[in-house]
Amino acid sequence: VVSVILTVTLNPALDVTYRVEALQPGHPHRVDGVSVKAGGKGVSVARVLAMLGERVLATGLIGGLTGDSVIADLPVPHDFARITGESRRAVTVWSTSDCRATLFAERGPTVLASEWSVFISGFDRLASVAEVVVLAGSLPPGLPDSAYAELIVRSRAPVILDAADEPLRRGLAAHPAMITPNADDLAAAIGSDAADLVEACRELAVPVAFTLGPEGAVLSTPAGSWSARPPAAIRGKAAVAGNSTGTRNATSGGDAFTAALARGLARRSDPPALLADAVALSTASVLAPASGDFDPATYERLRTAVEVRRL
Amino acid sequence: VVSVILTVTLNPALDVTYRVEALQPGHPHRVDGVSVKAGGKGVSVARVLAMLGERVLATGLIGGLTGDSVIADLPVPHDFARITGESRRAVTVWSTSDCRATLFAERGPTVLASEWSVFISGFDRLASVAEVVVLAGSLPPGLPDSAYAELIVRSRAPVILDAADEPLRRGLAAHPAMITPNADDLAAAIGSDAADLVEACRELAVPVAFTLGPEGAVLSTPAGSWSARPPAAIRGKAAVAGNSTGTRNATSGGDAFTAALARGLARRSDPPALLADAVALSTASVLAPASGDFDPATYERLRTAVEVRRL
Repeated sequence: VVSVILTVTLNPALDVTYRVEALQPGHPHRVDGVSVKAGGKGVSVARVLAMLGERVLATGLIGGLTGDSVIADLPVPHDFARITGESRRAVTVWSTSDCRATLFAERGPTVLASEWSVFISGFDRLASVAEVVVLAGSLPPGLPDSAYAELIVRSRAPVILDAADEPLRRGLAAHPAMITPNADDLAAAIGSDAADLVEACRELAVPVAFTLGPEGAVLSTPAGSWSARPPAAIRGKAAVAGNSTGTRNATSGGDAFTAALARGLARRSDPPALLADAVALSTASVLAPASGDFDPATYERLRTAVEVRRL
Repeated sequence: VVSVILTVTLNPALDVTYRVEALQPGHPHRVDGVSVKAGGKGVSVARVLAMLGERVLATGLIGGLTGDSVIADLPVPHDFARITGESRRAVTVWSTSDCRATLFAERGPTVLASEWSVFISGFDRLASVAEVVVLAGSLPPGLPDSAYAELIVRSRAPVILDAADEPLRRGLAAHPAMITPNADDLAAAIGSDAADLVEACRELAVPVAFTLGPEGAVLSTPAGSWSARPPAAIRGKAAVAGNSTGTRNATSGGDAFTAALARGLARRSDPPALLADAVALSTASVLAPASGDFDPATYERLRTAVEVRRL
């Protein structure tokens, strides 16, 4: 039995990106460029892990012809459970005149209780050979908010939970090995609760890692808390990269952050090294011109240049 | 051999419609409602003909998993030629707060010369048993502007051409049985050339039918020209229906107009009756709450209520 990192994507998406000159509401647009790739947070984390040379297996729920398109684009070994509903699309319209991204995210298919039961049987089998399990992204309609909590309880392998809102809070109570609340588009929603969340993690002795965008990240564990940030010159560049390419690189930074934490957990890295590596990889990802990519040389340079500080 | 109306869709689309509360460029949107259906002008015309109880066969070019989704939703018998490229999507974002539709239309796959040759062989076979052929919609990248002209020359059955720009002008020179230039979103482009186009049709003795939206339509033939319009009360309603539901019902009105003309040509209706029927059906379609639908009773009432006038 060879150990792998298992990524779970319960609501995968076909990410469709359109390039238009300018988005004008109420008007028809000829799309100049179309790119399509398999998405959903868990899938994106799996892609980064594969780029790092890690053994990774992607699982989750998939359905319909849109699901077939997702599967056809998966860059890693996979074992998804089929559902009768159709997997969702997420359409991003990229306006070149003002560099703004406008996202239209479908909610996803309604999952039946029987389909969830079938998935769980498969999950037990896959998780039994996993070194680390990553649960990432939104839940599709039909699944209870306790879905991630249930998987955490069933998994003998350590679990990283990258979720938001109620599925995150329920999952937290099931004692995952670490949580990485998504700090991009959900920053506003979590913002005011961040202190509460860190406090809850401390009470439950659950490590929590937060990205702070170009400013780095924080890792809070029962053994202590650390912050890590890239050198000042890089922080400036990362902030600009975030501005000039909208939400996409921020998102891929978050995916890379979670991927690095998963690999670090599998290798039992100590907390400061774990955090420094995750900040180096997510920063390299934000700096890359293409979403989801990173330059290995930049990543290597940042691994030693990131400043870690005990809080 | 049973005769059918053959519809040709060289650039079919998976029409995806999203309902959002308000479209805010640069922001993420949760999509409240998703509807997906097979589209492209020829497919839409075929759907109307099937609703009218006509025998119809849909052909064209199709590719990839998006093409599979189009095929899966086709409401009529079909025989499409497979291509290696992926068929396109057309995403309409419907903003409920201001009733505005914003369309993002992909250009479509690049068609290879060898794929076009294979299609043509199939077309010859299918057109030989067709009573009327409908060529409708845009051409995908890779096809020459003369593509419709070539099909018109090869078809022994009368051909209705519903196209725009250069493919329309080239097609016109190949003497189709009738042209129905699309008067919706291309109105602006054709507008100033409308008089030239009618003049060209007269010189070539090609009948041309134009819709005037809620005001009815015009049919100009070598035997004479006619206009037809719905009663005043209906015109008022149709104008409001067009306003309140944006471009969608105007589009389905155009599809119904072409479908009625195809059926009328197959039945060898005389020009005034042909035009009256097409205006009745397109008006009923514009008045229907759901895009692509029409109320049979409204259609029947309008068939006798439409006023036809020789110009």
